[in-house]
Amino acid sequence: MAKKSIVSMAVIRRLPRYHRYLEELLKNDIKRISSKELSEKMGVTASQIRQDLNNYGGFGQQGYGYNVEELYNTISKILGLDRTYNTIVIGAGNLGQAIARYTNFERKGFKVKGIFDIKSDLIGTKIKDIEIMDIDKLNEFISNNNIDIAILCIPKDNAQKIADRLTKNGIKAIWNFSPIDLRVPDDVILENVHLSDSLLTVSYRLNEEDLFKNSTEEK
Amino acid sequence: MAKKSIVSMAVIRRLPRYHRYLEELLKNDIKRISSKELSEKMGVTASQIRQDLNNYGGFGQQGYGYNVEELYNTISKILGLDRTYNTIVIGAGNLGQAIARYTNFERKGFKVKGIFDIKSDLIGTKIKDIEIMDIDKLNEFISNNNIDIAILCIPKDNAQKIADRLTKNGIKAIWNFSPIDLRVPDDVILENVHLSDSLLTVSYRLNEEDLFKNSTEEK
Repeated sequence: MAKKSIVSMAVIRRLPRYHRYLEELLKNDIKRISSKELSEKMGVTASQIRQDLNNYGGFGQQGYGYNVEELYNTISKILGLDRTYNTIVIGAGNLGQAIARYTNFERKGFKVKGIFDIKSDLIGTKIKDIEIMDIDKLNEFISNNNIDIAILCIPKDNAQKIADRLTKNGIKAIWNFSPIDLRVPDDVILENVHLSDSLLTVSYRLNEEDLFKNSTEEK
Repeated sequence: MAKKSIVSMAVIRRLPRYHRYLEELLKNDIKRISSKELSEKMGVTASQIRQDLNNYGGFGQQGYGYNVEELYNTISKILGLDRTYNTIVIGAGNLGQAIARYTNFERKGFKVKGIFDIKSDLIGTKIKDIEIMDIDKLNEFISNNNIDIAILCIPKDNAQKIADRLTKNGIKAIWNFSPIDLRVPDDVILENVHLSDSLLTVSYRLNEEDLFKNSTEEK
């Protein structure tokens, strides 16, 4: 089973959102905000924000509110944005290429160090200034570079096999876009972005009312 | 506030996963499976599966188990996969192009009918066989085509403005990749894929232990 987090994932998933809002406030030159205002902006309760932050020692003061820049910097640090990360992208198809080209990630400190594929017509071509390498070079590349995160963008059929190779070669975090629930060792972080699953909740919800209307009629 | 679902989102988000596993079982020609086996495969409890399915009337029998094909077909129908969906992609950057090219979605019944951008060097070029249109044509295009889902892949600065235009023109579902929490009317389905938020949970978790080690030392 993949690595468990110390703080609950529900809390962790709210942190990047706080970070985004605070970044926006900073950009608009807002220096101080009450927990009430911050909570109204974000659509969560003030007590929720306080509780979440209390996991990390707590910040700001009730009534007096938060120093925006201080809170932003602290949450940046909590999110690990005070350092950089070496990543590799496995699978240079449409999605892999899009991820590799996404400058937002690089700006936040996530550097793509290598891109791998099995297709001979892709191997040797470049994305930005990074040559796409043969997947056969994967083990060697991981050994010689300090890779923090592997980004998996391959069809599901080979995904588990490649994930096994990644973790056997010391990769401790996989950002998985392959539409499969991977099995990884207990000390490996697994974060899934299952795009199809997400899209299917949209189609579900577009029909949800009919679903219940029909089921009532049938009874 | 975006539209609320009737069944809880926690349940809804498990349905595509059940669907994926059942598809795999079907592919491997497995015709019947006990709720115990199914739950072991998926890492959820058998009672969780039963509870989830009970929202939709319940299926199969304890002990006897589930007819795989029947359950697959029923969940397909619940997910709205017994019809097709017309989609538009807003933003023909790296991510928008990747989504528009992703054949998996088309295979499931999600057809890209139009792609829009503001960049003059993109407008008029084609992705697959679909010409990228000027965003100025958006309102007219929505009026003349039955668009079910808008896929938003633009930078955050214009995202709210475009979302407003989409909903004013009758769009009832937005699949949002822009890194912003959109405000949409009560009758509009909003499904977010916040890639940066997801990546930031990985960087967080890579440093989580140090975070708590240091905070203990400081005290």
